[in-house]
Amino acid sequence: MEEFSIEKRIYYHDTDCGGVVYYANYLKYLEEARTEYLLSKGVDLQKLSGKGIWFAVAKVEIEYKSPARYQDTIRILTRIEKTKYSAMQFFQTIMKNTMTVTEARTTLICVNNDFKPIAIPEEIKNVINQ
Amino acid sequence: MEEFSIEKRIYYHDTDCGGVVYYANYLKYLEEARTEYLLSKGVDLQKLSGKGIWFAVAKVEIEYKSPARYQDTIRILTRIEKTKYSAMQFFQTIMKNTMTVTEARTTLICVNNDFKPIAIPEEIKNVINQ
Amino acid sequence: MEEFSIEKRIYYHDTDCGGVVYYANYLKYLEEARTEYLLSKGVDLQKLSGKGIWFAVAKVEIEYKSPARYQDTIRILTRIEKTKYSAMQFFQTIMKNTMTVTEARTTLICVNNDFKPIAIPEEIKNVINQ
Amino acid sequence: MEEFSIEKRIYYHDTDCGGVVYYANYLKYLEEARTEYLLSKGVDLQKLSGKGIWFAVAKVEIEYKSPARYQDTIRILTRIEKTKYSAMQFFQTIMKNTMTVTEARTTLICVNNDFKPIAIPEEIKNVINQ
Repeated sequence: MEEFSIEKRIYYHDTDCGGVVYYANYLKYLEEARTEYLLSKGVDLQKLSGKGIWFAVAKVEIEYKSPARYQDTIRILTRIEKTKYSAMQFFQTIMKNTMTVTEARTTLICVNNDFKPIAIPEEIKNVINQ
Repeated sequence: MEEFSIEKRIYYHDTDCGGVVYYANYLKYLEEARTEYLLSKGVDLQKLSGKGIWFAVAKVEIEYKSPARYQDTIRILTRIEKTKYSAMQFFQTIMKNTMTVTEARTTLICVNNDFKPIAIPEEIKNVINQ
Repeated sequence: MEEFSIEKRIYYHDTDCGGVVYYANYLKYLEEARTEYLLSKGVDLQKLSGKGIWFAVAKVEIEYKSPARYQDTIRILTRIEKTKYSAMQFFQTIMKNTMTVTEARTTLICVNNDFKPIAIPEEIKNVINQ
Repeated sequence: MEEFSIEKRIYYHDTDCGGVVYYANYLKYLEEARTEYLLSKGVDLQKLSGKGIWFAVAKVEIEYKSPARYQDTIRILTRIEKTKYSAMQFFQTIMKNTMTVTEARTTLICVNNDFKPIAIPEEIKNVINQ
């Protein structure tokens, strides 16, 4: 089973006055990791958007298990769980050493310039399912 | 059925280069609306944290139905769906005129200074369930 | 002398683990206040960008005098100090009660779709200098 | 002349609907680069804050020369220009290939837990001025 991993350090701007990473900011790291995962497969979201193909987030389910803090290094593990006609579902785990920080399931929908769902292009499906 | 509502205008800093509000930023508006909802009930999160009582987000499920854009005015509707020993579950809808932008279910857990779950104080349960 | 004012409450997402508002976030409030100021004069940045007229930030000088904290209400005072061929210079003060939180000077440049400086349209200059 | 450098990729969350990086977000990258610069010298801001020694931003002057965009890789160059009793002044340049994106001068003040200025500890001055 393939698992793609990136690392990130936590800075002041990631945290809030509760002393831990602000809950919305994890969604930024999830975006970064999905982008890097797709780039590693040769799928360039920027080039696709130039052709009128976008991936819009349709749904996020995220569980917060333990907090990350200033200057922690976190690891974001990313894999695709399933793909359908126009949907691509990611499962991502954020770890701090051996501890799970968050687990998230994100569904992206392939849409055109008018935000209407379209089929995921065949060449993307192929590289993703490899 | 009670429904608490706040309004917000969308600025540049809320959006991304896809031309719409960035998906993580909706979680900020949800936080703002929950805070205002609780304040309207007399529950002040700041005073509580001074007593070692915090509400940490344990889970978010959010569906993105249609995008909000620069200079849109959105309305965030907030209500509590249920409370348990240490958990409080919110259901929130973000509207743009009559269109649903997002729907989100957020579970907060009452924790102490060490992030350990504790019972939601009785006086909070009382005002919340009114 | 005219001084335009908006108010804002500080939420968790505005702060960092130092316990105060994160220094970059003040620039978001400055943007919000400039937008509201211009809208109050009838200048709609969104409509202008549809005509290929943008205002890009060219320079910011900001001094941090005293920190704002969670649940503080701040007031952002905005005025235009001067305008030139393609430049518009704002002076903005953020207050918390009678205390100055920050003072900022921001220069915006009127640019076309290719980020090339152009003259500020006459009708904008007129309303601004009223 | 010493120049410390880090690289960063630009993601959706860094940009706004003008199609470029949002002006306040550059201040986040400047923070990241200063933290990495200080860590590379053995100065750990987290350990210092545990001893009641903080570095608060007192002033930022930033010029925006050319925009960075989605998926650009930027390079942040960092050096200390001067130190005084309690102040430390950084000069930082953000580059995209050979093009200057922004230039920023940031003054940090060494403060205690009550945000009162204190002398920069001797051991920090020593490593910084090496």
